[in-house]
Amino acid sequence: MPEVRVDEVRRFMVDSLLAAGAPESEAKAHADLLLYADTVGHFSHGLNRLELYVNDIKGGMTHPERKPVVLKESPATAWVDGMDTLGATAANFCMDLAIKKAKECGVGWVAAKRTNHFGMAGYWAMKAEKEGLIGLAFTNSAPIMIPTRSKESACGTNPLALAAPALKGDSLLVDMATTTAAMGKIEMQIHKNEPIPEGWALGPDNKVTTDAQLAFDTAKLLPLGGLEKTSGHKGYCLNTMVEIFCSGLSGSNPTFKVPGWSFSQDVAPDLGQCFAAIDPGCFAPGFAQRVAECLMHWRNLEPIDPSLPVLAPGDKERNNREATLKKGTITYPQGQIDSYYRMAKKIGIKPLTVV
Amino acid sequence: MPEVRVDEVRRFMVDSLLAAGAPESEAKAHADLLLYADTVGHFSHGLNRLELYVNDIKGGMTHPERKPVVLKESPATAWVDGMDTLGATAANFCMDLAIKKAKECGVGWVAAKRTNHFGMAGYWAMKAEKEGLIGLAFTNSAPIMIPTRSKESACGTNPLALAAPALKGDSLLVDMATTTAAMGKIEMQIHKNEPIPEGWALGPDNKVTTDAQLAFDTAKLLPLGGLEKTSGHKGYCLNTMVEIFCSGLSGSNPTFKVPGWSFSQDVAPDLGQCFAAIDPGCFAPGFAQRVAECLMHWRNLEPIDPSLPVLAPGDKERNNREATLKKGTITYPQGQIDSYYRMAKKIGIKPLTVV
Repeated sequence: MPEVRVDEVRRFMVDSLLAAGAPESEAKAHADLLLYADTVGHFSHGLNRLELYVNDIKGGMTHPERKPVVLKESPATAWVDGMDTLGATAANFCMDLAIKKAKECGVGWVAAKRTNHFGMAGYWAMKAEKEGLIGLAFTNSAPIMIPTRSKESACGTNPLALAAPALKGDSLLVDMATTTAAMGKIEMQIHKNEPIPEGWALGPDNKVTTDAQLAFDTAKLLPLGGLEKTSGHKGYCLNTMVEIFCSGLSGSNPTFKVPGWSFSQDVAPDLGQCFAAIDPGCFAPGFAQRVAECLMHWRNLEPIDPSLPVLAPGDKERNNREATLKKGTITYPQGQIDSYYRMAKKIGIKPLTVV
Repeated sequence: MPEVRVDEVRRFMVDSLLAAGAPESEAKAHADLLLYADTVGHFSHGLNRLELYVNDIKGGMTHPERKPVVLKESPATAWVDGMDTLGATAANFCMDLAIKKAKECGVGWVAAKRTNHFGMAGYWAMKAEKEGLIGLAFTNSAPIMIPTRSKESACGTNPLALAAPALKGDSLLVDMATTTAAMGKIEMQIHKNEPIPEGWALGPDNKVTTDAQLAFDTAKLLPLGGLEKTSGHKGYCLNTMVEIFCSGLSGSNPTFKVPGWSFSQDVAPDLGQCFAAIDPGCFAPGFAQRVAECLMHWRNLEPIDPSLPVLAPGDKERNNREATLKKGTITYPQGQIDSYYRMAKKIGIKPLTVV
């Protein structure tokens, strides 16, 4: 498969967003977000989505030139209007505010309405982690998951993320959709022509399916836990927790009113997002040391299969990123390269240069 | 099965804790906590555990006469020493503090070390919900869950709870262990002589077992999601998030050092617990209305099986509680009544009067 240099991917992402009409600072911020996802191996949230963002700007659903606005504030909280800016613009604004508040009074909790897709939730949690804080990030999304017992999809993949600093640059990173699997994973099974495990999704007959294409077309993902007997209702509960933090606090669209994200979408999604930072310095001394001890303990557990070591949350992403940066290139499917060649021609920028 | 009047169960719980040495206010507070669990149908966390609490006091592991102490404070946070008091004593202290701080600056985030088992996590989240706030509660616990890929148990059931107010006394309540199933559910399958579903636990061969007794004896619960192919690593991630909030912030024992809770335990568990309150009044107006709309939307979804309506998180517990209070009695297994008859004789209180 074609390889593209990491800096060339970033160049292409920035050029695309600039050509669509984003200011340079926001094009760069958003490119950093998407590029990060590709370097850690979350390909569904990287270059894969660039064209949707470009389309949203060109279609007037996203307004990259605007600035988010604080609508209400208390020492530890803020309510923000994301103004339908690019995902990274509102998320940087909100997390910066949460970090500032956490440094001032221990916790910063910020909820924003009228936001756009903000990529990997973990990227935003890590922004606080780099400041020595616990970071949290949540977003709602279009309805694609069935609440336990329901025939209809009514919940999003509603991810949650937490990042916490350990010692020497090490950290714990939780970054997970509250569905069993993200739609991107089902797409990967289609590409590989392989079935999906039981417990990922229902078919049109409302029974569990292992047919990846059928699962994709039906769009009835199961919550984390799968069916009720294996505690799928807990994943549904978790999903509603994210909803409360997002649309509940911000007054955005609740998930069941969020339009699906596609090239035919013609309104802004008005997503709800929530960003929080907590200063561990306000609690028992030695937080980073304790996180480090937990990470060490988990990583040193004896694995069932010696070839599959026990990981701490975030290790997979960190390992992928180190390998990618060392190699200096990212591998994309030929179809994606071709599709972005066409986009480049259409918007008048230099296509991606394959190594 | 024997029935006991609700007020008689409370009388017995209070008398037991008083006889063990608890002050009246704390005996009552702790009885309310345990009784609540039985009225909502979480029998594992109610009368079932009373004798363990009594034993902990009599053995000198729990000190019901002490008061928790604030060790460090900022406008939105507090670090508390639970002083090995009864679970309800420290939890009431911490959640009251979180509520006060949330009312003052939007968020209150309190972490406590040297705490004891605090029963149903949701009970504490609801304490904030009754004040019109979002409530959150977390606790770590003894190691009983295997991190994904691990041979050994190293994580607890580490539950998380969130409660949010809706309209007219209605609310959303998330209250879940981050394991697929709690040990209490496996015990219930043993009593019914029925297998457990695949995905709940591993056997001694580190393979999924459906044998309830084997699962109980092995004590290798799977995280929410089950095995890695059905995203059990997400349940493991969630579990570590709770750990970070609990032992991470408070400096208590991390789960892997928490002693198992039994009659042979001879040291205080030094659990870590975390309580938070968020004031929705600091965000978009109309929070309760929006929560109500979500609850309504989910409840009105067409169910796959018409006899199993779609529930909103917390509906099952609310329905159980209403039915219990209407009936006025709680049903317990005969074995439990017999066992508490023996305890009553031993500590010199009036046994439970069965209807």
